[in-house]
Amino acid sequence: MPDRQRADARRNYARILAVAEDEVAAHGADASLEQIARIAGVGSATVRRHFPTRRALVEAVSQKRIAALCVRAHELGGAGDSRTALLDWLSEVVAYCVDARGLAAALIYDGAESASVHENACSAQLEEAGAPLLRAAVRDGAVAAGVTVADLIALAVGVVLATEHRPDPGAAADRLFRLAVAGLSPESRE
Amino acid sequence: MPDRQRADARRNYARILAVAEDEVAAHGADASLEQIARIAGVGSATVRRHFPTRRALVEAVSQKRIAALCVRAHELGGAGDSRTALLDWLSEVVAYCVDARGLAAALIYDGAESASVHENACSAQLEEAGAPLLRAAVRDGAVAAGVTVADLIALAVGVVLATEHRPDPGAAADRLFRLAVAGLSPESRE
Repeated sequence: MPDRQRADARRNYARILAVAEDEVAAHGADASLEQIARIAGVGSATVRRHFPTRRALVEAVSQKRIAALCVRAHELGGAGDSRTALLDWLSEVVAYCVDARGLAAALIYDGAESASVHENACSAQLEEAGAPLLRAAVRDGAVAAGVTVADLIALAVGVVLATEHRPDPGAAADRLFRLAVAGLSPESRE
Repeated sequence: MPDRQRADARRNYARILAVAEDEVAAHGADASLEQIARIAGVGSATVRRHFPTRRALVEAVSQKRIAALCVRAHELGGAGDSRTALLDWLSEVVAYCVDARGLAAALIYDGAESASVHENACSAQLEEAGAPLLRAAVRDGAVAAGVTVADLIALAVGVVLATEHRPDPGAAADRLFRLAVAGLSPESRE
């Protein structure tokens, strides 16, 4: 492909991706491919070529937010109490998922296509970024051994999905996540 | 409406509901209304008249399972350790939601239409059924005061939604729910 054509294709993809980001943030994983094509001024077939599955769509539009959360994990890991750092990071995962409706969907797709190698899976990136935070908290005796980052991300995503129809989804998700962190027993509560 | 016509309408509705139950259990809240109409041998407009919104659809098809869970709450409340009774019941809520994909959706719709009075809301029925179990557990000092049945149902639903794409969704949901019940701290684990 000549340079000029390649540059056109890149611009085209960037425009479609920008539209897709807005549509998925607003409507979640069920965002309409036809609507994305219409706003981006391309045919549905072009959108489908870039995003052959819904999973590919939500993963692509979630990349910036996943990258930002990975940066945050690194920043939080540098200082302070290890349990606080882990919980602060997980609260940011919850807040990001509340804010952008497709992100929770992107994080639960893994496992669905378990046979395929999927190197850029959003959850794999996030698990890798969160691993040092969890390791430090377990080492300090602040989190039980046996808990995995995947567990914690699934809990964060679950509370977001369970509360997305509430009048104040952010507050409801936050309350529920604190409950899961504390557990049900009176003696275990923070 | 004459008796005969009324009986026809009832049979019609029962057939549509039976088809809708199967379709929603298999495909979740996104089950196709057109597909339900086709299998039931009626027009889409008829299906839409019975289920004007997706919420109405998932609530209608969830009624039998909600009723069964209400009966279970009553049975479990009768005997044994109050914390065990509550947790056993919540595990059944998780298992039912894993088994019938629309049930989780029915349980999270509340709040979406907060202005409307919705007397038969699935979650309201379930909250009422679970309230005596929670009260007993709190009274026995086995569950922290301040936790609500709505919190517990939301947690149960959340872990199901977060794990529905896993290779073994039932086992994954169960593991995650136990984690939320225990909390993250080492000393709080059962």
